[in-house]
Amino acid sequence: MSEKKSYHMSPEEFRRHGREVIDWIADYHENVERYPVLSPVRPGEIGDSLGTQVPDRGEPFSEILQDATERILPGITHWQSPGFHAYFPSNASGPAILGELLSAGLGVQGMLWSTSPACTEVETRVLDMLADLLGLPEAYRSTESGGGVIQDTASSGVLCALVAARERDSRLRTNRQGCDGSQVAYCSTQAHSSLEKAMGIAGLGRANLRQIPVDEHFALDAARLAAQIKADRADGLRPIFACATLGTTSSTAVDPIAAMGRICQEEGLWFHVDAAMSGTAAICPEYRHLHDGVEYADSYCFNPHKWMFTNFDCSCLWVADRTALIGALSILPEYLVNDATRSGAVFDYRDWQLPLGRRFRALKLWFVLRYYGVEGFQYHIRRHIELARRLVGWIEADRHFEMVAPTPFNLVCFRHRGSDELNERIMKELNGSGEIFLTHTKLNGRFALRLCVGQSRTEAEHVEKAWSLVVATAKRLRRRAT
Amino acid sequence: MSEKKSYHMSPEEFRRHGREVIDWIADYHENVERYPVLSPVRPGEIGDSLGTQVPDRGEPFSEILQDATERILPGITHWQSPGFHAYFPSNASGPAILGELLSAGLGVQGMLWSTSPACTEVETRVLDMLADLLGLPEAYRSTESGGGVIQDTASSGVLCALVAARERDSRLRTNRQGCDGSQVAYCSTQAHSSLEKAMGIAGLGRANLRQIPVDEHFALDAARLAAQIKADRADGLRPIFACATLGTTSSTAVDPIAAMGRICQEEGLWFHVDAAMSGTAAICPEYRHLHDGVEYADSYCFNPHKWMFTNFDCSCLWVADRTALIGALSILPEYLVNDATRSGAVFDYRDWQLPLGRRFRALKLWFVLRYYGVEGFQYHIRRHIELARRLVGWIEADRHFEMVAPTPFNLVCFRHRGSDELNERIMKELNGSGEIFLTHTKLNGRFALRLCVGQSRTEAEHVEKAWSLVVATAKRLRRRAT
Repeated sequence: MSEKKSYHMSPEEFRRHGREVIDWIADYHENVERYPVLSPVRPGEIGDSLGTQVPDRGEPFSEILQDATERILPGITHWQSPGFHAYFPSNASGPAILGELLSAGLGVQGMLWSTSPACTEVETRVLDMLADLLGLPEAYRSTESGGGVIQDTASSGVLCALVAARERDSRLRTNRQGCDGSQVAYCSTQAHSSLEKAMGIAGLGRANLRQIPVDEHFALDAARLAAQIKADRADGLRPIFACATLGTTSSTAVDPIAAMGRICQEEGLWFHVDAAMSGTAAICPEYRHLHDGVEYADSYCFNPHKWMFTNFDCSCLWVADRTALIGALSILPEYLVNDATRSGAVFDYRDWQLPLGRRFRALKLWFVLRYYGVEGFQYHIRRHIELARRLVGWIEADRHFEMVAPTPFNLVCFRHRGSDELNERIMKELNGSGEIFLTHTKLNGRFALRLCVGQSRTEAEHVEKAWSLVVATAKRLRRRAT
Repeated sequence: MSEKKSYHMSPEEFRRHGREVIDWIADYHENVERYPVLSPVRPGEIGDSLGTQVPDRGEPFSEILQDATERILPGITHWQSPGFHAYFPSNASGPAILGELLSAGLGVQGMLWSTSPACTEVETRVLDMLADLLGLPEAYRSTESGGGVIQDTASSGVLCALVAARERDSRLRTNRQGCDGSQVAYCSTQAHSSLEKAMGIAGLGRANLRQIPVDEHFALDAARLAAQIKADRADGLRPIFACATLGTTSSTAVDPIAAMGRICQEEGLWFHVDAAMSGTAAICPEYRHLHDGVEYADSYCFNPHKWMFTNFDCSCLWVADRTALIGALSILPEYLVNDATRSGAVFDYRDWQLPLGRRFRALKLWFVLRYYGVEGFQYHIRRHIELARRLVGWIEADRHFEMVAPTPFNLVCFRHRGSDELNERIMKELNGSGEIFLTHTKLNGRFALRLCVGQSRTEAEHVEKAWSLVVATAKRLRRRAT
């Protein structure tokens, strides 16, 4: 009763229910392997199990939490299961979850430095530390010409970079008057779909994105990029932006960053590097060479929410020249004017992103960096890559299977010899079993299975189990076919 | 030691530290009035107190949490303090914080229906329920032609609506070929800055946003809107979009929604309603009339993360015709192809928003709706509005002060008679006292104080205290001036 006097949850109730939710999560992570990785529910099944109206009178929290267990859990695809090998991981961790909790508890909104200085300053400092950890160029530091900012996703990051490029090219004319359809951008045929989407959103036009062919390793062909830029200029178009991918979504291919960077420098293009998942590998010195050529990049993005134990959402974007980004996105209505902004001594991160408001995401990233330390990250990155290589060995040793792309990191792309249909059937049987979840892509026009090793708690036993399931499923399907 | 064996936090450690963080938050909310509402730190002070490098070895969680208390808390501006009257509220609540926690614990990524059906279906259902609660048009229901989606902010929501309008007008030509600078959009001079920012991002050009003059209550003058549309057409331009604001940021003015809606219908413009904070009031039957005319709107947005106890971020966008939105934002690379998407029986919310990835934000909203119930919301909305009116009474009774805008909801705009400088000095003294935090705007070119009553735990005593502080500060400054 007392809890409902003001309808608010009292601090004492919050302590009690908070412990229940903490235990719920701990239980969940302890038992996550018991659930089918890919939710087997049918469309509408979860929605139909919920009420249709907001209740007139509030309900006890314990009932709500029980409903979450009974009605929501069956509709969850378990991204935190060690059997989750689909897409890219979105791995979480204890310190990240507690950082997110603390951020929700503080409930600050960091649109301006002054609306919570810590929200801005922790973010700036943490992104400087992270730039060091990844061996990124000096220019990206907040103490130099650039700086880092947390975005929700790499999609938003590349849209910001693209808009900054558009405005640098037009000297803010497009920002004032609108686009004219003459500006073109470049990436490989393997680049993430978010770039094409961003071209549409930014008014540049999806058809003005030139998707340059790739080599046999699915990496962009730099000579063809240079040729296409010249051809477009000859046609009276304005090349403004190129994106290199460090670890493509389909197969973690690595574009020739240095070669592309030199071309962009010569041609005056904004050069963006999308290292969404694979950038994390550069925490290990033996992968640091991946960043050779990043010194040419105007912007660089990677997602701690993929392979760095920081739960979604947390995508880091750095720029070499923050004035270009801020100039494209800034707006200052009277109701946001304040002395700190006027002084020019602070960053107002609303000018570094699409939305105005923002929450305190740096807190969880700061927690994760300190909790794991450099050696914690290195341990897990090396282990995931080693497990992926072990899997490659097994695939190569099995005459029924073939590799279809190199494995520079933790994503293994392979297929069963034979038809696309067989491979799709194998995938569906595996996913339907509930034991593991993996997804597919098409490489050279053929259906390929993608198995990514990056979930926080995936161990050798899980990869071994995944491979036995693949082998057994294929065997069963081959028998059925004969 | 055991906790660091795999570098991960063990479930047992998570239980222990989780309780510590829950208690930290409960203590924080119990003691929040002891802190200065507006953080008094100087630029750089928080950043300089942090380390400069990611540690080689991980650190114990207890040290990290202690640092959060000692180093972060001084840099927090306390949005959850009952003395927070600045901007618009970003109010949190127990059930919302615990919903956010559960979402972080589950760690699902809901880009597609299939990547966690519950993440999509709870959102669809909750937004249908909320549309009922607010008395929004039938068309907005997922069971009809429309549907609702959670965005991070109203800024992203209006950008999505604007891009959908752009594409409906051009029949997807701009999406493919880029903008041509001929499309124009409309709002009042009092509309939120995010619309101007969105015009720039979307390649439409900020100069192509026509800011229509307002009447004496700061509401858009519909006759001038109609005239401007005709003038633009006569100039060979293409009017595509108009935004009405239900509760402007400066003064919570309400544009003539029905009149604007009829004009947009006649002229074939996409009509968007931005009810970011004030939409919440429609939960009370006596404010339901606010939504008269919303039946003309192609899209409608309001933020539960402002005045509905659902912590940031949680902004709801509804559209009357979901195909227009999806058509503008959809893209389907091979690695996201799946049977559920192919079947057409599900929503894939990645096509309803700018980014690809998304977290399970509907969980906290579902928790809040069930925990408070209709009567809980009505109680607080009415109380906040009543407290704001009480303040208006005191202002009107004091010869030194004057009201500068109507108070339809919970935002009071007033000023001390005399110079802008005096008012700015009053505001700075008040904010520097740490007792309350309020902000300003300019109305009719004059500096006005804005005092918003919307924080979850703001009670009569806090508004009384705020007013005594205003009066005492003004008195002191008047004396000093003489």
